[in-house]
Amino acid sequence: MIVVMKAHSNNEEIQHVLKFLQNHGLSGHLSQGVERTVIGVLGQTSNAGLPSGIGGITPGLEDSLEGLPGVDNVLRVSKPYKLASREFHPENTTVEVPAACVDGGSVTIGGKDVVMMAGPCTVETETQLMTAAEAVRKAGAVILRGGAFKPSTSPYGFRGLGEKGLQLLAKARDEFGMAVITEVMTPSDVAMVCEYADILQIGTRNMQNYMLLDEIGRTNKPVVLKRGMSATIEEWLLAAEYVLSQGNKNVILCERGIRTFEKATRNTMDISAIPVAKTLSHLPIISDPSQGTGHRHLVGPMTLASIAAGTDALLIEVHPNPDEALKDGAQSLTIQQFNELMPQAQAVAHAIGRDFITR
Amino acid sequence: MIVVMKAHSNNEEIQHVLKFLQNHGLSGHLSQGVERTVIGVLGQTSNAGLPSGIGGITPGLEDSLEGLPGVDNVLRVSKPYKLASREFHPENTTVEVPAACVDGGSVTIGGKDVVMMAGPCTVETETQLMTAAEAVRKAGAVILRGGAFKPSTSPYGFRGLGEKGLQLLAKARDEFGMAVITEVMTPSDVAMVCEYADILQIGTRNMQNYMLLDEIGRTNKPVVLKRGMSATIEEWLLAAEYVLSQGNKNVILCERGIRTFEKATRNTMDISAIPVAKTLSHLPIISDPSQGTGHRHLVGPMTLASIAAGTDALLIEVHPNPDEALKDGAQSLTIQQFNELMPQAQAVAHAIGRDFITR
Amino acid sequence: MIVVMKAHSNNEEIQHVLKFLQNHGLSGHLSQGVERTVIGVLGQTSNAGLPSGIGGITPGLEDSLEGLPGVDNVLRVSKPYKLASREFHPENTTVEVPAACVDGGSVTIGGKDVVMMAGPCTVETETQLMTAAEAVRKAGAVILRGGAFKPSTSPYGFRGLGEKGLQLLAKARDEFGMAVITEVMTPSDVAMVCEYADILQIGTRNMQNYMLLDEIGRTNKPVVLKRGMSATIEEWLLAAEYVLSQGNKNVILCERGIRTFEKATRNTMDISAIPVAKTLSHLPIISDPSQGTGHRHLVGPMTLASIAAGTDALLIEVHPNPDEALKDGAQSLTIQQFNELMPQAQAVAHAIGRDFITR
Amino acid sequence: MIVVMKAHSNNEEIQHVLKFLQNHGLSGHLSQGVERTVIGVLGQTSNAGLPSGIGGITPGLEDSLEGLPGVDNVLRVSKPYKLASREFHPENTTVEVPAACVDGGSVTIGGKDVVMMAGPCTVETETQLMTAAEAVRKAGAVILRGGAFKPSTSPYGFRGLGEKGLQLLAKARDEFGMAVITEVMTPSDVAMVCEYADILQIGTRNMQNYMLLDEIGRTNKPVVLKRGMSATIEEWLLAAEYVLSQGNKNVILCERGIRTFEKATRNTMDISAIPVAKTLSHLPIISDPSQGTGHRHLVGPMTLASIAAGTDALLIEVHPNPDEALKDGAQSLTIQQFNELMPQAQAVAHAIGRDFITR
Repeated sequence: MIVVMKAHSNNEEIQHVLKFLQNHGLSGHLSQGVERTVIGVLGQTSNAGLPSGIGGITPGLEDSLEGLPGVDNVLRVSKPYKLASREFHPENTTVEVPAACVDGGSVTIGGKDVVMMAGPCTVETETQLMTAAEAVRKAGAVILRGGAFKPSTSPYGFRGLGEKGLQLLAKARDEFGMAVITEVMTPSDVAMVCEYADILQIGTRNMQNYMLLDEIGRTNKPVVLKRGMSATIEEWLLAAEYVLSQGNKNVILCERGIRTFEKATRNTMDISAIPVAKTLSHLPIISDPSQGTGHRHLVGPMTLASIAAGTDALLIEVHPNPDEALKDGAQSLTIQQFNELMPQAQAVAHAIGRDFITR
Repeated sequence: MIVVMKAHSNNEEIQHVLKFLQNHGLSGHLSQGVERTVIGVLGQTSNAGLPSGIGGITPGLEDSLEGLPGVDNVLRVSKPYKLASREFHPENTTVEVPAACVDGGSVTIGGKDVVMMAGPCTVETETQLMTAAEAVRKAGAVILRGGAFKPSTSPYGFRGLGEKGLQLLAKARDEFGMAVITEVMTPSDVAMVCEYADILQIGTRNMQNYMLLDEIGRTNKPVVLKRGMSATIEEWLLAAEYVLSQGNKNVILCERGIRTFEKATRNTMDISAIPVAKTLSHLPIISDPSQGTGHRHLVGPMTLASIAAGTDALLIEVHPNPDEALKDGAQSLTIQQFNELMPQAQAVAHAIGRDFITR
Repeated sequence: MIVVMKAHSNNEEIQHVLKFLQNHGLSGHLSQGVERTVIGVLGQTSNAGLPSGIGGITPGLEDSLEGLPGVDNVLRVSKPYKLASREFHPENTTVEVPAACVDGGSVTIGGKDVVMMAGPCTVETETQLMTAAEAVRKAGAVILRGGAFKPSTSPYGFRGLGEKGLQLLAKARDEFGMAVITEVMTPSDVAMVCEYADILQIGTRNMQNYMLLDEIGRTNKPVVLKRGMSATIEEWLLAAEYVLSQGNKNVILCERGIRTFEKATRNTMDISAIPVAKTLSHLPIISDPSQGTGHRHLVGPMTLASIAAGTDALLIEVHPNPDEALKDGAQSLTIQQFNELMPQAQAVAHAIGRDFITR
Repeated sequence: MIVVMKAHSNNEEIQHVLKFLQNHGLSGHLSQGVERTVIGVLGQTSNAGLPSGIGGITPGLEDSLEGLPGVDNVLRVSKPYKLASREFHPENTTVEVPAACVDGGSVTIGGKDVVMMAGPCTVETETQLMTAAEAVRKAGAVILRGGAFKPSTSPYGFRGLGEKGLQLLAKARDEFGMAVITEVMTPSDVAMVCEYADILQIGTRNMQNYMLLDEIGRTNKPVVLKRGMSATIEEWLLAAEYVLSQGNKNVILCERGIRTFEKATRNTMDISAIPVAKTLSHLPIISDPSQGTGHRHLVGPMTLASIAAGTDALLIEVHPNPDEALKDGAQSLTIQQFNELMPQAQAVAHAIGRDFITR
């Protein structure tokens, strides 16, 4: 950390800062410029149990420093996350997910090749789910998505079939050999969802539901962590750090669009978040162009763009009959549209030297 | 709802929309303009059990309509919330909170007069809390704030004393006769927090934690619902609708700043949200200038601005020694600053014909 | 337009709206729903000289309607732009730019194939420009970018060489046969810049500099219209409409990133704006990943993503020695990086069935 | 400036940065922490002719540094503006505007008391303007607003009466003794508008129209500089620095709302920008609640909030017959509404120890 003093801060104020640092087991390193003084903060900080020095991590301390008299602002020099950081873990993390339909019985996310996760937004009926699963599997998807617990902005909206939905997903897995990804919304449901799912999903509204992150961190399940709709990439990596710091290493990031002033799309997909997250972190990152755009005709282009930018997997909503979908009909692809998209996706993957894992 | 067709939509597409509406027990009312056709949607919708007609509420249906061929977009004519809406509940709602220090033993939020809620961001020690409580009570606050469960962006930050913090709050209540407000973060804590607190607080990150909203909706406790940091006012009122629809009528809205591109403040306080929420809803609305700005020197001006704009109460962080605060030191007022602010706040309240409830 | 009345609007208010419409040569078409009344607006509006009916365009009128008593809000049914709209001009527009290095002597933007525009952010010296031009031409660029008039956030920043810079660009064109694109910042410079440049560029800060749009509209020069950093796609198309309505049909849109809360990148590139603009408009659209990201290591991935999403051209900053660039060094590619990027860009273009025009 | 190296930057990279600094006449001051190295930048920088040292200003240099190998990021320690900064000009600036209706013949903006600027959005007819001017003067306004050159998002919208409008404004000034404020949109109009107006206005879309800023900087006219709709406060102060650095010291800042995701209001008024700007700068700051909200019923509360937060003046749209306004009818107050607002505004001003200058 670096403490920047105001242009006309006086000596008493500077001494107060140095004393404050000393009281917290740190020391300050003074640089007096022409215009103002800056104080580099040195020394181990105990709270977090993390390496410190200039650049240490002491959530809260920074904020107190900023409030001291004569202080203009406090600049953080190091990243506030460690376990999620590529600086301290240069190799890519890969996450293995059991999937009978794949040679070897498991699919790798975050490796050389790209993975397709597809299926309906919400599990509605057995027929709907089985039809969708069969179709997307046939087209090359190896992971089946489908919501059993659905967040709904309105209390009058459909909130999913619950455990019944999970059972249908498990049935589809048995039938088609696909791995299953589904959302879990609250800590008390984690154990139950773990029984049925191969990958847990943390939705955008729950990215900072810390008790949920903790609970999932105590399992060993692969988990897709969607970016909060107004989360910075740093906050997103801090949310990943919650899960990682509880011991669960199988975290997969998912860009799904952020909130901006633009109204033509439901969200603004931050495609640059893919290479940025790859630079800052070693975790796999995937892309959800269905939620990210909200419009069926944009899912194709944004799927291809995500692949070109380096995504490790796609999460796409496909519905046998989108007109009758209980949720998100406008952004669901038809089976035919999905069939047409897969070869295009593969062509773009090939162009950047990757392949799709389809079996 | 109104379905706007594309400029060159053909008759087949229009018929498809009409048929779709019919299949959902609705009817369409065609208006053919020079440039394009629009279809007004008429009829009762069953899902939500709410009055419909043009302007009915069917979450999900809107989205399916938008995906139909030839449809340009779907315009919603009515508000998606009912119980929170002033249109269907023209009178102001007031929330009564037991507070021994107030004449009559309770304080009214949302009535003619303004209320001050103050105290430390986080309960740290008995001395800290008691000192803060005594001071803010003396200055005129009647509700004591203090966090026992604290959301922290970093897993390495301080997360509060938990039940021990709640016990200290209860002790301060006994000592000073103030009502107590404190945050609850997860459904399984609701019962415990209800035992100690007079008002529950739902933090900005949990505004769309639907299971938490449901659980609090099943109690009868007054609850302060903070606006999500990127929530529209409509989404905020829909979150209130969750609580209301479970039967808890004691919902209080709280503006605490939204996320924008501006970096000089921690958040951008949307002061206009106060009169907007008053117009759209009958619920009381309060203001949190500490979280809203993140800087001590801005808390005063934004407190006064909130009162001038019509806030029903203030929620302000005060710490006996902000330099040593475990969280949010930079935005906490000192006791002296709070003492100076109260008479200014009262003067602005008087200027708009309101008073502060101080006993 | 559709006027939505408040739930409890009375007959007098409804009649007032109808009268108001009548006074403006329009008529209102009443639909009384269970919950509220909506009024469809019919009839020709004279101001704009555009077809009307439900969906007519009368800037200003909408706003007055919204202020009438009993009115809840006013919904626009049609697009506020016509000449830029695909609805009224279904065929893609292509823009021809003279370029001696291309077979046939001109390059087509918005056609089947993709075009590379590259060069330094700012023209600094003859050597710098010639070195950059030679290198990017060799790698396959056919249009040379370079700023002679540079917007600078600080008045103490470098603002470009002015006409001297234009002369150097013209020299490079003569030498390498490339077309030249350069920014013009104010109406009084348009004539001069037209003398030297093949394509004018309107920068993000000038997207709503209406007198500049008018002036450029009165020429016949191809013009790249960058999206304002907080402009909606609709406002961007309205800015294009300014140029088009003055008679200049050679408008090319350029996505260059929008302003969001995210700090890891200089802007957030809205890649979905590419397919959205293609849907709403017939104009060519290009992509500027240098400005869009602000970081050299992100330019490659975002170039490929733009191509995959359907961009018609790229605008990329390349500097022979970025360390010494007077502006935007951090986002400029080295010549070697650009050389490596071109074949990757071509591979992605091929994957979606397009080619690069390189001669 | 402080250069933060990556955690695993090597010595060669560090030496490269130091060499780079040396080449630019600067020196680097190394601090090696446990985790990473940071380099403080010392020494005079020539480009800007401004005092440097740690915290110097060299637009462009910062960016080049950020691109050097091994550099993680570059932290700016000092403010990039000087003339606008309170650090270097601790006393409040006041701007004097000639106004015959005020005792002494001029009105002070930025002094102890508050000033009301009111009038129609746009000058439409002599009757409209005179009626509005007479009414707002009677109610206590001393400055008359009215647009003769109007920015319009659509090319088909009303763009003002031009010089004819200016003449009407001058006539109203003669009649009622009020000072006149009106917008100027392009450099070539500055001289003409100066002839008629007492205060120039730079609109939100032109905050970064640098040639316009330069031209106005070369006059001595008071100028109201509206905040760009997505401008940070820092960028806004840099725009002020443009005008100041050309010699015009009479700059007045104006908060008018920023663009966010919220749709209930036209813009989100950043009321905290008032105390923030007061802290960072010595310039007067005023508030435009009409543009800032877009809705008549919000103008009153936001006027009062602005005063409570410390605004030096208000800019309010008043129209004798808002239903017939050619622009912005929905946000214009009626004369009666304005008459009712003035005493409330005065009461809030009194509450914070200020008065309104009404004669």
